[in-house]
Amino acid sequence: MSDEFERIEQFRRRLQATSADVVLGIGDDAALLAPSDRAQALSVDAQVEGVHFDRALLSCADLGHRALASSVSDLAAMGARPRVALVALIAPAAIPEDELYAIADGLASAQHEYGCVVAGGNMAAGDRLSITTTVVGDAPPAPLTRGGAHPGDALFVTGALGAAALGLQLLRAGRGELAPACVERWRRLVARVREGAELAGTASAAIDVSDGLLQDLGHLAAASGLGFEVELPRLPLAAELEPACRLLGVDPNALALAGGEDYELLFTVPEGKTPRLGTRIGRAVAAPGLRLLDQHGRIVAPPASSGFSHFGAR
Amino acid sequence: MSDEFERIEQFRRRLQATSADVVLGIGDDAALLAPSDRAQALSVDAQVEGVHFDRALLSCADLGHRALASSVSDLAAMGARPRVALVALIAPAAIPEDELYAIADGLASAQHEYGCVVAGGNMAAGDRLSITTTVVGDAPPAPLTRGGAHPGDALFVTGALGAAALGLQLLRAGRGELAPACVERWRRLVARVREGAELAGTASAAIDVSDGLLQDLGHLAAASGLGFEVELPRLPLAAELEPACRLLGVDPNALALAGGEDYELLFTVPEGKTPRLGTRIGRAVAAPGLRLLDQHGRIVAPPASSGFSHFGAR
Repeated sequence: MSDEFERIEQFRRRLQATSADVVLGIGDDAALLAPSDRAQALSVDAQVEGVHFDRALLSCADLGHRALASSVSDLAAMGARPRVALVALIAPAAIPEDELYAIADGLASAQHEYGCVVAGGNMAAGDRLSITTTVVGDAPPAPLTRGGAHPGDALFVTGALGAAALGLQLLRAGRGELAPACVERWRRLVARVREGAELAGTASAAIDVSDGLLQDLGHLAAASGLGFEVELPRLPLAAELEPACRLLGVDPNALALAGGEDYELLFTVPEGKTPRLGTRIGRAVAAPGLRLLDQHGRIVAPPASSGFSHFGAR
Repeated sequence: MSDEFERIEQFRRRLQATSADVVLGIGDDAALLAPSDRAQALSVDAQVEGVHFDRALLSCADLGHRALASSVSDLAAMGARPRVALVALIAPAAIPEDELYAIADGLASAQHEYGCVVAGGNMAAGDRLSITTTVVGDAPPAPLTRGGAHPGDALFVTGALGAAALGLQLLRAGRGELAPACVERWRRLVARVREGAELAGTASAAIDVSDGLLQDLGHLAAASGLGFEVELPRLPLAAELEPACRLLGVDPNALALAGGEDYELLFTVPEGKTPRLGTRIGRAVAAPGLRLLDQHGRIVAPPASSGFSHFGAR
């Protein structure tokens, strides 16, 4: 069994990267991040075994990637550029070394993908595996927040919805082959960093879709002090969603509205502005609460399986 | 049972603080830290129930305070000024609310003590309580690192040693009344922020004593590529240490050398310079390894109970 210091050294080797942002990396009392004339956006996210992931469904490499990417997604939602990450790992003393180091390899892959260098961290023993990742990035001159939407703003979402939730459901059912792209999307989530940076300056408010479109829209509504109408026929559904849902007898709208873990950006745009990306799915209204509209503009109840029993504002 | 959002709101209320460093605090996708022309020092530390603390010995308020203060100590060891913290809490769903909010009160107390504002965080369910705290601060123009010591540098330590380890031993034995100041010192560790800032510019290398003087000195030795001699009679022992150790039949030097959790700063100073604080306890030498010297300058073995079976460099 390697001791803590040997483990840290193994992580350090796997995470080596050069970056103008890092003055001093892993191995001292603190890491040193180069000065920046921008405000710094900071976020932290935890992945806990048995709560956020099941090691039977997610490899340790995917877990490492996910831990960093999910935190980076919070920076994307502010329009920030990721710079460095700190990774605090709690792992059972008896975890096999190859699994432990696969986590480092997954972190290294996300580090490379997002240009977000792991500059420090912590290792502790504990009976349940967890990874807590803090990320720091350069905020844009006008950072995107949840509270900037106004009545009349158009509501948009990047990419497509429902893929990650479907992928997870398929894995749980042992039917991953039905929609491999959705499985991959859940295993290796994509943080919309480039999109967030493009939207800063155009969007009035933004959030990343981690809990599910309806729940995250509830956060936008609460922070902005208003409500939203969502036009169901406009929801951009992931490509494999409808055929796989037919086979499974699942409502694709339920996955798109409440499935979560899409990590797309949900954002509002003031009247008269047109964002360079995203699909318009509704609008902000003065009355609090969320309303779903069908193709005739009539208010409809959310799908029963969306987990939303009532439709008040949070 | 309150839900996650109600819990976050309760934390937010207890942690309210104004700070020129915080542009946007708890409640959005990311916190925003005001720009600074200094390099930023970043560190993360985890406190895990059953590993780092036992809730029978440490109140939830003490735990919250300790979580923030132990991370701040890493910034102190770089000579940095703490600015903001992010707190990731993993807690059982069934934790009583008063205990949960006592953690927030303890964090608020440390936040006030160190001027280090909790600007964000994360809450997750998990069967074992843990707090992972990330801190960010302004580094001084010449940050203190572990790797800057040279042969001939004098070795110093701030404050006194052994108090925290004695306090913990007494609590475990149900004899806390024998040395209440030591118990308090363990429960409410003190991060040496002011001392670290004073030493930046004078000290050649520094580390905070969290694992124990010998182990942390081993880190300094390894990072600087040299060895150390420690003069045992010079060790500054905490005031209550000797009488309590006599009663318990414990070697006070063993607690001072290996007890850990003192969070004093261990630092080196180039020949010819005199620091404004600290006690000189030895010197850096070219030969690797750590050597303890008695009052006659003779090499002696470390106390058996110090946990050091051999004396090589790490």
